[in-house]
Amino acid sequence: MKAKIKVTLKNGVLDPQGKAIEGALGSLGFSGIEHVRQGKYFEIDLKNTDKAKAKAELDDICRKLLANTVIENYEIELA
Amino acid sequence: MKAKIKVTLKNGVLDPQGKAIEGALGSLGFSGIEHVRQGKYFEIDLKNTDKAKAKAELDDICRKLLANTVIENYEIELA
Repeated sequence: MKAKIKVTLKNGVLDPQGKAIEGALGSLGFSGIEHVRQGKYFEIDLKNTDKAKAKAELDDICRKLLANTVIENYEIELA
Repeated sequence: MKAKIKVTLKNGVLDPQGKAIEGALGSLGFSGIEHVRQGKYFEIDLKNTDKAKAKAELDDICRKLLANTVIENYEIELA
């Protein structure tokens, strides 16, 4: 089973990388950009074929390693 | 208009971060993991409301800044 996970900063948390990209895009001549937020994206192949168990395991994985839940949200998509 | 962009390594390109995460997950006791691939995720708010123009602008943005198209793929989702 394949899982796709997005980890993004919570609203209100400063995103220096996003700001840097906004600046770079401006200097490259892209004037139509309002905001840029950068996050992390993971694709995980799991041996588990039981969706409920896989979801629980992935929640655990996100909380323990992939996301800092104080400042980040995570979103799990199971394919 | 909001765009969601995923940038991932092309198949066959070594992913040291993904390997490091696989190792860490193993030592945390998660035995059901086969592979982990890490990429980048961006959310961009655009002033442009014309979908075709926005898509063309985002393609340009990905090729010029967000993705190294020699080793990375990018995927644009317009909401």
